[in-house]
Amino acid sequence: MDGTLQEKWEIPTRTENQGEAILPDIAASILEKIQEKKLSKETVAGVGIGIPGPVNEKGEVSCAVNLHWGCKQVSREIEELTGLPAKAGNDANTAALGEAWKGAAEGSSHVILVTLGTGVGGGIIIDGKIVSGAHGSGGEIGHANVVPDAKESCNCGNQGCLEQVASAPGIVRLAKKELEENTEDSLLRTGEVTAKAVFDAWKQNDKLAGRVVDTFSAHLGRALAIFACVADPEIILIGGGVAKAGEPLIEAVQREFQKAAFLPCKKTPIKLAKLGNDAGIYGAAKLIC
Amino acid sequence: MDGTLQEKWEIPTRTENQGEAILPDIAASILEKIQEKKLSKETVAGVGIGIPGPVNEKGEVSCAVNLHWGCKQVSREIEELTGLPAKAGNDANTAALGEAWKGAAEGSSHVILVTLGTGVGGGIIIDGKIVSGAHGSGGEIGHANVVPDAKESCNCGNQGCLEQVASAPGIVRLAKKELEENTEDSLLRTGEVTAKAVFDAWKQNDKLAGRVVDTFSAHLGRALAIFACVADPEIILIGGGVAKAGEPLIEAVQREFQKAAFLPCKKTPIKLAKLGNDAGIYGAAKLIC
Repeated sequence: MDGTLQEKWEIPTRTENQGEAILPDIAASILEKIQEKKLSKETVAGVGIGIPGPVNEKGEVSCAVNLHWGCKQVSREIEELTGLPAKAGNDANTAALGEAWKGAAEGSSHVILVTLGTGVGGGIIIDGKIVSGAHGSGGEIGHANVVPDAKESCNCGNQGCLEQVASAPGIVRLAKKELEENTEDSLLRTGEVTAKAVFDAWKQNDKLAGRVVDTFSAHLGRALAIFACVADPEIILIGGGVAKAGEPLIEAVQREFQKAAFLPCKKTPIKLAKLGNDAGIYGAAKLIC
Repeated sequence: MDGTLQEKWEIPTRTENQGEAILPDIAASILEKIQEKKLSKETVAGVGIGIPGPVNEKGEVSCAVNLHWGCKQVSREIEELTGLPAKAGNDANTAALGEAWKGAAEGSSHVILVTLGTGVGGGIIIDGKIVSGAHGSGGEIGHANVVPDAKESCNCGNQGCLEQVASAPGIVRLAKKELEENTEDSLLRTGEVTAKAVFDAWKQNDKLAGRVVDTFSAHLGRALAIFACVADPEIILIGGGVAKAGEPLIEAVQREFQKAAFLPCKKTPIKLAKLGNDAGIYGAAKLIC
């Protein structure tokens, strides 16, 4: 109940037959662990669970593509399968809640987390609670339309999403465009162009990589400034694989954020998330604590 | 307590000497009304108050330029002056709360209100509560940086604020630019160029005015789509003087919103606010109910 991680383990995710085994597998694993530890069910507060898809306030999922799910009443199913109280949240949202509870935003009640990876995810915490929104898509800031003149389509079908310029594939796309449009030397002309390669080259003062990072930082910093006008967070966290570029990335984004932010929010700190993949464990636990 | 407006009245706002008389005047007027109505103080739930400036969760104002105030503990002062419980909120935020309680968003717990007037204000309601944020600037969406290539400065010191393209003066500026850059005939070439004149000319199929309304709608619709990625509201309301252009304006903004919105939010309704200046009365009352 105080947010100490006792143990973590993994089980395979069986997605066949519309992922019908996923929740029963999870429930069985939980009950097994309770037995293994010789706990009485009464001493278990419940089950918190993060889902890669939109989750509404009742713990219902409308669809979760990666799990092969359509509509699913996750909280209710887990409760029926385990006999324990259960609460479900979106995975990015539970990660934000975890960082707000026990991570880089510990002690803050108003937090924006943005995760930069294969996609761009996000979670908004207001008054210590996840903003799930009317359609379970609160905090879906990766699909904020922040590049008005963009032509290429995002996976979501729109153009101009933050994800297209701030995800790992988005950064690669920006880099390839620079490489095609220019003939100048660059460390990026040898080896595979990845987001990591871009940030590594930038740290070695590669000019072309520098322009890519400038574009990325300008879009992300300005987007965060817009989000701050809505939620006015105490702190903004950046996580996900791209954030492994570390403090220099944070500083670049913070500079652009400060240019675009409304006066009262200019000093809002931007920091690296620190719980990594465990953030969701803490956040899911917090849902039930 | 059920949100029935019993009576409304006004008193002058005396801003001299850093507005030191404003709260005592309000308190005296409230006590007078209680006496006039022969109420006992015990039957009064308290005082709710909307302030034109940032208000934090403790009811403290850091500054309110139009009232000539610096830092002021509004809730505490009103409590001391009246002997009644008091709660203060930002005026745009209390207006949003009023619309969510008894106005065009009645029954909704997640609402974005944007008010288009001399400036662009806003209020965000999540789970039925105002989002005041860490610096009292939650919902300050007029200063969201949504026009990346803008050159002219906003009153806030930044460039590219929504206020610069969606407030009444912003619309006038867009129109004057069109009038200068083109020589075509337009109804706007006679008489004063006001936001109302622009919308009136647009409704009469004036082409130049049409382009101004297109630009305005594109910026506002896209901005609302971004805000919806953060808060995922059940409904978005547009109020303020500019909204007097009515349903055609709503339709134009909704079209642009749908283009830019993330899939789950594309059908989020956009409607006219309906309580006008009374919205703040209802919202301030709700703060205390």
